[in-house]
Amino acid sequence: MKRIDINCDMGESYGNWTMGNDEAIMPYIDSANIACGFHAGDFSTMFKTVKLALKHHVNIGAHVGFDDKQGFGRREIKMSAQEIYELTVYQIGAMNAIVKACDPHASIHHLKPHGALYNMSANHHDFSQAIVQAIKDCQPNMILYSLAGSLQVKMAKASGLTVYEEAFSDRTYTDQGTLTPRSEPNAVIHDSHLAIEHIKNIIKGNVMGTSGKMIPLHADTICIHGDGKQAVAFAQQLKASIAQL
Amino acid sequence: MKRIDINCDMGESYGNWTMGNDEAIMPYIDSANIACGFHAGDFSTMFKTVKLALKHHVNIGAHVGFDDKQGFGRREIKMSAQEIYELTVYQIGAMNAIVKACDPHASIHHLKPHGALYNMSANHHDFSQAIVQAIKDCQPNMILYSLAGSLQVKMAKASGLTVYEEAFSDRTYTDQGTLTPRSEPNAVIHDSHLAIEHIKNIIKGNVMGTSGKMIPLHADTICIHGDGKQAVAFAQQLKASIAQL
Amino acid sequence: MKRIDINCDMGESYGNWTMGNDEAIMPYIDSANIACGFHAGDFSTMFKTVKLALKHHVNIGAHVGFDDKQGFGRREIKMSAQEIYELTVYQIGAMNAIVKACDPHASIHHLKPHGALYNMSANHHDFSQAIVQAIKDCQPNMILYSLAGSLQVKMAKASGLTVYEEAFSDRTYTDQGTLTPRSEPNAVIHDSHLAIEHIKNIIKGNVMGTSGKMIPLHADTICIHGDGKQAVAFAQQLKASIAQL
Amino acid sequence: MKRIDINCDMGESYGNWTMGNDEAIMPYIDSANIACGFHAGDFSTMFKTVKLALKHHVNIGAHVGFDDKQGFGRREIKMSAQEIYELTVYQIGAMNAIVKACDPHASIHHLKPHGALYNMSANHHDFSQAIVQAIKDCQPNMILYSLAGSLQVKMAKASGLTVYEEAFSDRTYTDQGTLTPRSEPNAVIHDSHLAIEHIKNIIKGNVMGTSGKMIPLHADTICIHGDGKQAVAFAQQLKASIAQL
Repeated sequence: MKRIDINCDMGESYGNWTMGNDEAIMPYIDSANIACGFHAGDFSTMFKTVKLALKHHVNIGAHVGFDDKQGFGRREIKMSAQEIYELTVYQIGAMNAIVKACDPHASIHHLKPHGALYNMSANHHDFSQAIVQAIKDCQPNMILYSLAGSLQVKMAKASGLTVYEEAFSDRTYTDQGTLTPRSEPNAVIHDSHLAIEHIKNIIKGNVMGTSGKMIPLHADTICIHGDGKQAVAFAQQLKASIAQL
Repeated sequence: MKRIDINCDMGESYGNWTMGNDEAIMPYIDSANIACGFHAGDFSTMFKTVKLALKHHVNIGAHVGFDDKQGFGRREIKMSAQEIYELTVYQIGAMNAIVKACDPHASIHHLKPHGALYNMSANHHDFSQAIVQAIKDCQPNMILYSLAGSLQVKMAKASGLTVYEEAFSDRTYTDQGTLTPRSEPNAVIHDSHLAIEHIKNIIKGNVMGTSGKMIPLHADTICIHGDGKQAVAFAQQLKASIAQL
Repeated sequence: MKRIDINCDMGESYGNWTMGNDEAIMPYIDSANIACGFHAGDFSTMFKTVKLALKHHVNIGAHVGFDDKQGFGRREIKMSAQEIYELTVYQIGAMNAIVKACDPHASIHHLKPHGALYNMSANHHDFSQAIVQAIKDCQPNMILYSLAGSLQVKMAKASGLTVYEEAFSDRTYTDQGTLTPRSEPNAVIHDSHLAIEHIKNIIKGNVMGTSGKMIPLHADTICIHGDGKQAVAFAQQLKASIAQL
Repeated sequence: MKRIDINCDMGESYGNWTMGNDEAIMPYIDSANIACGFHAGDFSTMFKTVKLALKHHVNIGAHVGFDDKQGFGRREIKMSAQEIYELTVYQIGAMNAIVKACDPHASIHHLKPHGALYNMSANHHDFSQAIVQAIKDCQPNMILYSLAGSLQVKMAKASGLTVYEEAFSDRTYTDQGTLTPRSEPNAVIHDSHLAIEHIKNIIKGNVMGTSGKMIPLHADTICIHGDGKQAVAFAQQLKASIAQL
């Protein structure tokens, strides 16, 4: 049975505002996508979250996003590919220095674009290339977390990067193996038992498509959510379920 | 005759707003203090300015400041020493990644706190220590540019850092060798000929104090200004004058 | 028995970040100090909070603060009195337009400076004057909420403004009738029963000083907190206690 | 001969950064579109610019934009119509309070969306409606400056607002009377003599289309630029030319 990576967005608190349950979730995940102070987080939150990840031997990822706290990085901002490259390098650098300051032997494990940047870059040639180039110019052994089956996955692999294709724990898939658009009624999996079945399928290399038939889907990492009342219980339950596989 | 370092604040443009004459000044200076996107600058300006400095073989410095663009980093903000440490590491990291992305063989040469952070940290034990520690944790061979004769100079040296003590090309000094407060009428040297005489004295290890007598002052670097109509002509004239020493 | 005004900071959420329990607290207070998008809040949160206050017939206050979300307006920023005047007018204007857009017959009831601005202006002549002048220039019938016994209270009254002198539900007082500094061990009242006794005393025109003796204190409004697990229960209990007086 | 309104973007400086030549241009224009602190400007710049406009009896407009200083409000940000409404009310309110604080008898004359908001709202039903509604809810006699011939013009008029249809002094038009896209080589008029001929045509109710034939175009106001070396000379020359008509 393949070992799958469980990733979760972390370090999304900002100043006096708290988001998520980082301390409670951290023990149950493999990889933390830590906000870099643009869409969420700040230098203090980053230090705190990096230390927490190091304590739990969780992989540290740079969660790079648009410079838009009010929109939480979820609003598309029309920027050039060159600007997206620059913005990515800047955030990688900030995160890298904080990781090294916390532990000189530690390093960034992966990069995951956040929100609108994730969606905009997954299947857009120039934005995808901007992020791939930023990784190559900063730290070529950094793993790119990208939407399973996307153009970005192909481009990053062709560029020599290691890529983890990502599936989502709470999203259904179409018969074509793409995410059911959020506008559809059944796009989100709300039931935690169904979500765990869904994840077990993903680990076996499949997702159930809209029509009910199994569709092959290759995923190396699965994204779970750290906010919401059920998040900690779900993370715990998921870790136990995977351990039994 | 001792070789003196001429430094200048650079990369202070922001988005659509331009400040200074970076392209015109760069050929005449030794070291550029490049804003890191907090008090001024942004990721695009940083890339552009780092490339310009590399082209002219000018030393690249991280010009670290408060996160306060409206106040241009000149307003004191009451932050803890821990926050100042974190803010400094963040900005060093961002700058370092950009330098490496522009040229993998290049690196940050020095760090200079900006504006209110420069003044607040020069003679304050904890703030001074925060900046020293940030350099040690990020890149211990980075040179700290600090106010000549300050507590920060002593603390940084005691910590094993290399320090360039800084004098100002357009500021007069008291008989105690400290800067004449800006509230005094004669605090600023407006005449460029007087400024060049003043700099020649500094190179010889002296400044003229308020009473007219020569006061010993050790300085390794002299700060000149990049904005203002006369800035380019002055930089040019200064470089020629120093070459003749 | 004098009717006392119970005020609470509201509308401090920001983008995706939630703070406080505005919907649960609103029924139990008289006056809401609503953040104006500088230290907290944003245009969407302001609309939502103003509508909530209108629904519950709660007085709407402009809670004006420094432009510093990371520091939540609690960090002193060295600005001139002129800038503080301008920043106050700007925030009053933004709040006023939102109130009028929600209900043309409604208007801002009061202004309360937030955090560092509250503390900095309470006993500083020029900052105090800046805020008084902003109210006079925007809407002279707006009530100023200010620290009981402060210079600002005197200046505002001398200027013809209506002032509500403010006491704090969870803070102890010295024998001089001033707030016990937060650095002292007993500065904060944690027990809700003690807090309600304290408030009853304030309503009667007294506070118990450090030595245990009763000190006269005139207060027109009492600040309670909207965050924390006990906040709603406390607000409820307080309203019931006051109703019985 | 119809009197035409000459408008110009103003108050676009920010903190220490200067943009434009507001003091030099102000005497030659009729209407100033003053930035409201979101895409440019800040409370201090707003006060300064409003005072300058009042001194020269120039109409004061709220130049409302996205909250994006780095992008100068020129980058599209995907926001909902509701958010655009709220953002517009906020900025109108801030500007209104500053105008009233400068002169209780003065008021906002017009509103002009800026940059990406101008373009996004001109022909988009919901965004257009958001801005129309904001004006109605804040100050229904405020004139909307909008792209000549746009959907927004029609919607605003249908809503009972006064609209000034806007043409551009430095942009060519297609045979359909729409702006030549900036991607075309001849989109911008660089020569000031041609620009003045172009403006004279607009005043007569025409523009020369791409094919050289005259196309009817109704415009009530013409936008000129305040930055650039030639801006002041052009504004001066334009005012003289119009006076002779």
